[in-house]
Amino acid sequence: MIRVGVNGYGTIGKRVADAIRAQPDMKLTGVAKTRPNYEAEAAVRKGYPLYAAIPERSDQFTDAGIDLAGEVEDLIIASDVIVDATPSGVGEANCELYETYDTPAILQGGESADAVDTSFVARANYDKAEGADIVRVVSCNTTGLSRLLAPLQEEYGVEKARVTLIRRGGDPGQVDRGPINDILPDPVTVPSHHGPDVKTIYPDVDIDTVGVKVPATLMHLHSVNVTLASQPTVAEVRQLLSDESRLFLVPEVAGIDGTGKLKEFAMDTGRPRGDLWENCIWDESIAVEGNDLYLFQSIHQEADVVPENIDAIRALTGRETQEDSMAITDDRLGVGL
Amino acid sequence: MIRVGVNGYGTIGKRVADAIRAQPDMKLTGVAKTRPNYEAEAAVRKGYPLYAAIPERSDQFTDAGIDLAGEVEDLIIASDVIVDATPSGVGEANCELYETYDTPAILQGGESADAVDTSFVARANYDKAEGADIVRVVSCNTTGLSRLLAPLQEEYGVEKARVTLIRRGGDPGQVDRGPINDILPDPVTVPSHHGPDVKTIYPDVDIDTVGVKVPATLMHLHSVNVTLASQPTVAEVRQLLSDESRLFLVPEVAGIDGTGKLKEFAMDTGRPRGDLWENCIWDESIAVEGNDLYLFQSIHQEADVVPENIDAIRALTGRETQEDSMAITDDRLGVGL
Amino acid sequence: MIRVGVNGYGTIGKRVADAIRAQPDMKLTGVAKTRPNYEAEAAVRKGYPLYAAIPERSDQFTDAGIDLAGEVEDLIIASDVIVDATPSGVGEANCELYETYDTPAILQGGESADAVDTSFVARANYDKAEGADIVRVVSCNTTGLSRLLAPLQEEYGVEKARVTLIRRGGDPGQVDRGPINDILPDPVTVPSHHGPDVKTIYPDVDIDTVGVKVPATLMHLHSVNVTLASQPTVAEVRQLLSDESRLFLVPEVAGIDGTGKLKEFAMDTGRPRGDLWENCIWDESIAVEGNDLYLFQSIHQEADVVPENIDAIRALTGRETQEDSMAITDDRLGVGL
Amino acid sequence: MIRVGVNGYGTIGKRVADAIRAQPDMKLTGVAKTRPNYEAEAAVRKGYPLYAAIPERSDQFTDAGIDLAGEVEDLIIASDVIVDATPSGVGEANCELYETYDTPAILQGGESADAVDTSFVARANYDKAEGADIVRVVSCNTTGLSRLLAPLQEEYGVEKARVTLIRRGGDPGQVDRGPINDILPDPVTVPSHHGPDVKTIYPDVDIDTVGVKVPATLMHLHSVNVTLASQPTVAEVRQLLSDESRLFLVPEVAGIDGTGKLKEFAMDTGRPRGDLWENCIWDESIAVEGNDLYLFQSIHQEADVVPENIDAIRALTGRETQEDSMAITDDRLGVGL
Ligand SMILES: NC(=O)c1ccc[n+]([C@@H]2O[C@H](COP(=O)([O-])OP(=O)(O)OC[C@H]3O[C@@H](n4cnc5c(N)ncnc54)[C@H](O)[C@@H]3O)[C@@H](O)[C@H]2O)c1
Ligand SMILES: NC(=O)c1ccc[n+]([C@@H]2O[C@H](COP(=O)([O-])OP(=O)(O)OC[C@H]3O[C@@H](n4cnc5c(N)ncnc54)[C@H](O)[C@@H]3O)[C@@H](O)[C@H]2O)c1
Ligand SMILES: NC(=O)c1ccc[n+]([C@@H]2O[C@H](COP(=O)([O-])OP(=O)(O)OC[C@H]3O[C@@H](n4cnc5c(N)ncnc54)[C@H](O)[C@@H]3O)[C@@H](O)[C@H]2O)c1
Ligand SMILES: NC(=O)c1ccc[n+]([C@@H]2O[C@H](COP(=O)([O-])OP(=O)(O)OC[C@H]3O[C@@H](n4cnc5c(N)ncnc54)[C@H](O)[C@@H]3O)[C@@H](O)[C@H]2O)c1
Repeated sequence: MIRVGVNGYGTIGKRVADAIRAQPDMKLTGVAKTRPNYEAEAAVRKGYPLYAAIPERSDQFTDAGIDLAGEVEDLIIASDVIVDATPSGVGEANCELYETYDTPAILQGGESADAVDTSFVARANYDKAEGADIVRVVSCNTTGLSRLLAPLQEEYGVEKARVTLIRRGGDPGQVDRGPINDILPDPVTVPSHHGPDVKTIYPDVDIDTVGVKVPATLMHLHSVNVTLASQPTVAEVRQLLSDESRLFLVPEVAGIDGTGKLKEFAMDTGRPRGDLWENCIWDESIAVEGNDLYLFQSIHQEADVVPENIDAIRALTGRETQEDSMAITDDRLGVGL
Repeated sequence: MIRVGVNGYGTIGKRVADAIRAQPDMKLTGVAKTRPNYEAEAAVRKGYPLYAAIPERSDQFTDAGIDLAGEVEDLIIASDVIVDATPSGVGEANCELYETYDTPAILQGGESADAVDTSFVARANYDKAEGADIVRVVSCNTTGLSRLLAPLQEEYGVEKARVTLIRRGGDPGQVDRGPINDILPDPVTVPSHHGPDVKTIYPDVDIDTVGVKVPATLMHLHSVNVTLASQPTVAEVRQLLSDESRLFLVPEVAGIDGTGKLKEFAMDTGRPRGDLWENCIWDESIAVEGNDLYLFQSIHQEADVVPENIDAIRALTGRETQEDSMAITDDRLGVGL
Repeated sequence: MIRVGVNGYGTIGKRVADAIRAQPDMKLTGVAKTRPNYEAEAAVRKGYPLYAAIPERSDQFTDAGIDLAGEVEDLIIASDVIVDATPSGVGEANCELYETYDTPAILQGGESADAVDTSFVARANYDKAEGADIVRVVSCNTTGLSRLLAPLQEEYGVEKARVTLIRRGGDPGQVDRGPINDILPDPVTVPSHHGPDVKTIYPDVDIDTVGVKVPATLMHLHSVNVTLASQPTVAEVRQLLSDESRLFLVPEVAGIDGTGKLKEFAMDTGRPRGDLWENCIWDESIAVEGNDLYLFQSIHQEADVVPENIDAIRALTGRETQEDSMAITDDRLGVGL
Repeated sequence: MIRVGVNGYGTIGKRVADAIRAQPDMKLTGVAKTRPNYEAEAAVRKGYPLYAAIPERSDQFTDAGIDLAGEVEDLIIASDVIVDATPSGVGEANCELYETYDTPAILQGGESADAVDTSFVARANYDKAEGADIVRVVSCNTTGLSRLLAPLQEEYGVEKARVTLIRRGGDPGQVDRGPINDILPDPVTVPSHHGPDVKTIYPDVDIDTVGVKVPATLMHLHSVNVTLASQPTVAEVRQLLSDESRLFLVPEVAGIDGTGKLKEFAMDTGRPRGDLWENCIWDESIAVEGNDLYLFQSIHQEADVVPENIDAIRALTGRETQEDSMAITDDRLGVGL
């Protein structure tokens, strides 16, 4: 059993914690939180040992009637691996602490690639993580792009990818984020940083990305163009993509016209929190014009990195092959719609 | 076992079907659908017998690879009670069919009160439904208001209620509905029809309601003012309301600031679809000024009528007392946060 | 001629500057800005002398090719009155500066009532401002409420007012503000501070307000209930309100269903920036139930305080009577749709 | 003087009417409307002769106290050219009427290219319209794309253009349109019809477009990639584009971050309705990677086709050269920010 602790129990952290609990070869040692809010309450109900991420605030938990199992350092000591899902920048600052206790850690996509030994997407570079001290699971967008490029690259070769990322303004609970009624070039400078981030996974791929921000909360949408080295048929691309476990082709017959219904389908099938761990590729959108492939994919920002975090835990500890780890993760989570 | 069929398997119908399945004294005979879309697919996965709501479209199901158990009339024959959750107006038209087979039916809030024997809210008038042919579970807003008025009326007496209903523009999957960026007086005429609808439950209550529509999808918000016949303290009101199983007081310590985080909490605790069956009353908002009580409550339009439908099934068939039925329903669904 | 300078040239400041320029008895001495952005560019095009609000940033203007007329202190010296339209809190801090130069100033609704000699709404308490050093034009919401209560109070007497303020999340250009998809009790504590703010204008009025925030940018909507001391007919209320120059009754025949079309009408008639200086009362919404008056009014947050600022300038300097000042202001701006 | 009538007085029609009135060589004979709503009221205030678009509804105007100058056929008889700005599909149906009176007409982008003699963008194919009976000013998106491609094509040659059109869900007054909280592939099939529409202007250009719909009302955003035949510097592209009168490069120094502030700038400079007749190209976004040009442009859907309609009137009647017509139009409207 790999003993895993989660430091930072928010949007990503709570999902990773649930996913860890579902694995046959892992044990959730506990989660570290900063405040006794509704997420803490839910963690308590699930029986997760709670640790104070900021020791000085321990009293707040006591006042709220929540028993703490200890402080964050206790959690680190009790764990073989830490998944750090704190806000951007905090993860990097936490690394010193993990090093102190010689505990390998997994950071999230909000951290800089320079701060880590390797950036990680299971489908693309599982083996690189073995033995690393600090691994970074890349952002939701980069994860989504890498998963898509992987089979295209292997099967047809990618000459150039051009992607417009139409990003949700904030997560559903982030009421302070906008815009309310705008379509923002964001970043306004082109190309955006997402392309270079993909290169932390695929150093040689030629990719230009641009970013836009809009008033929606459910999922990102990628408008993808890939100039391939050869020219497949649409049917071949469909087959290729549908063979990938973490790509879901939204079928026309489903009558799903957007991310609202997509998440509804996920909830109808019993997915926890309506999570879509897969890239959701719109089947009807797949088109080939000459060597140019086009498609739309929707990416559930809160969820797609969750299976990657689980695989990263195994990859880092040198357990399982890529295929085996992905298969176990997918099976235990229920990946595949 | 009460054999129950669901005709109309959309937002409300699918939730009611799941709730029926969870009851110890009910058997879901099947669900009738018009199209083989994603909701049909999810029903198939759950093993719900599927019936063609519109017989001429049976082929569409076959083409989509979905086996039908029959047509809607077969479903009616196989059922002791039908829950009709078709779009507004369709339910009323369907009544003839239910009468043909002498099968009692439960309609939803989109239907007219005149079309039914009695309108229904479990907490308020459970006993009136016994023996009825057609019962109407009132709308999400009317259900929410009735549940709140019930204890206030009993405990303090209601002199007058004035409520501004700030309504979500559409459900999350309804992408054709607006507004995108407006605050609409809707209906612009005052008072709105919601007040008279409450009077189908509480004929003598003096209530004026006004309606507004805004660009949000998650929940309605009620801004409630009730002039009481006596003057309680805030603490007394809190106690009174927290004793009701279908009222949830959102506690300050939870750090929940809106309906996004409220639904997130529901999802974190494992609620299917993040459903909030309870009125969500903002604890901090409860205020008493003279005889005037003020509070905000958020109402999950997709969910609050679900337990009422279950109770209506029992009420109509004369099984269980109000208290027992509500207790069984709440226990099996997991009402109470 | 009253020489008036505007310190803080944003949403409110630029509108007030244009309004000052339109008055026969005022001269715009200039506007003070912090940055050479698009608003500075537009000011330059209008020929407004530009002053550096933050002297250390003068270079930024030069770099952007904009000539400055001086620094903010020069503007104060050149002016008989300053309209301060800086962000909340800054105005209060600026008062020391205005006192240093013994220049009376008008602050905006974001400042505390305690920081000023008197709070101001032209229709309600024009005469109180004479001779004051610091006058505060109250917020858009308080202005809108006071204008409505004025004739009701005078004609029928107000026993109690209860108002739900459904507030726009941010102004159209404020892309950092949310929520994107929520209906927020805001403030969650009831009653809100808006009621007490109305009492800075009408100390004796009994008013409870509650606030809600929604994802819209164009206007606020007030859901108003006023219990009157006597019982007028709807026709009488209509007549009373339509006699007020700063109340606009949105007629049914116009086919206007929301604030989008309302602003469109303002733009179609040539209003600068589509500004609605008047309370926009939805004619069809006016209803009387017993002594209870109900109505909806939409308030253009960016515009309704503009005529009040102009009147405050005259009131403070002791020029003109209330009626005359309001008439001149309205005539020069074009108030009255 | 060219006598011009406008049939269909909505979003586009009212803007075109104002623009006609501003031209030295045109006379607005009147506008035909279907209902006496707020737009009719505004037309009356401007002194535009009003004609009943649907004769049977003449009474509605009389009831609303509006005098009609006649019926739509009277307007056609009184005009040398008709600009038809009725809803999609109606324009095509109206052509029979225009032919009956042998009056040439200009349709809008909602009509099919097959229904007209030529599709039109002034900068691209002015001369083709001469003598035509029916000319179609292409849609806002196609107009925006054609204006951008024109100089690129002439100067560098366009090998292939790939554009993601992120479209506003509805105009500000269209409260019935959604989505409220979604990012929709729309159309979900790729490429979208916008590319072929550009080919009605530039038959030989190789362009693939994809469409997305989001909850915003102010402007569309185009994420543009053009593979050029040669490789310019960013500075050269900037120069080239800034030389075009109907392209506006949004400068970094303006501090404009989205379409909210962009429209605010237009309003601050006194533009009627805050109209942006120009493509608004985000200066900082212009980038060249190899032969690939990238940029973002925002398109004000309600306004960019207005100058094109004016030029189409002259082009069709054989008056003025392209350069002269565009210069007159731009001068009279005030194009160029
Ligand atoms: N939300 C997304 O869409 C998303 C997607 C992919 C990756 N990420 C990345 O995941 C990381 C976490 O993002 P999130 O969205 O889950 O953020 P979040 O704000 O939802 O959660 C972060 C949690 O960390 C806690 N925290 C703050 N400071 C802490 C500290 N010093 N120690 C421990 N806990 C602390 C916060 O209280 C919060 O509960 C970021 O790097 C982010 O870029 C986020
Ligand atoms: N969605 C809400 O917020 C809400 C809340 C409370 C009550 N209601 C009421 O519940 C009822 C159903 O609303 P909903 O939101 O679930 O609608 P919905 O559109 O989500 O679902 C209705 C379903 O009925 C199906 N249907 C259409 N015609 C049919 C027919 N002739 N026979 C059988 N099925 C047919 C549709 O295909 C759809 O699946 C309405 O009366 C509505 O007013 C809705
Ligand atoms: N926007 C509204 O809806 C609204 C309505 C009514 C009242 N108000 C009140 O009006 C005041 C101004 O609000 P606003 O919306 O116009 O804000 P804003 O942010 O649009 O404009 C404020 C301007 O002041 C400038 N500024 C900042 N610091 C300054 C300083 N030290 N000296 C001079 N200028 C400075 C800013 O650069 C900006 O241009 C606030 O008190 C606000 O509460 C705003
Ligand atoms: N709104 C945009 O963003 C936009 C942009 C570019 C092009 N267009 C095109 O312009 C055309 C008009 O669109 P719009 O947005 O101005 O529509 P609109 O609905 O705002 O205006 C259309 C007007 O035509 C009137 N009308 C309806 N039937 C009529 C009839 N039989 N005779 C005369 N008038 C009639 C309507 O009452 C309305 O006033 C469409 O082809 C549309 O595709 C619209």
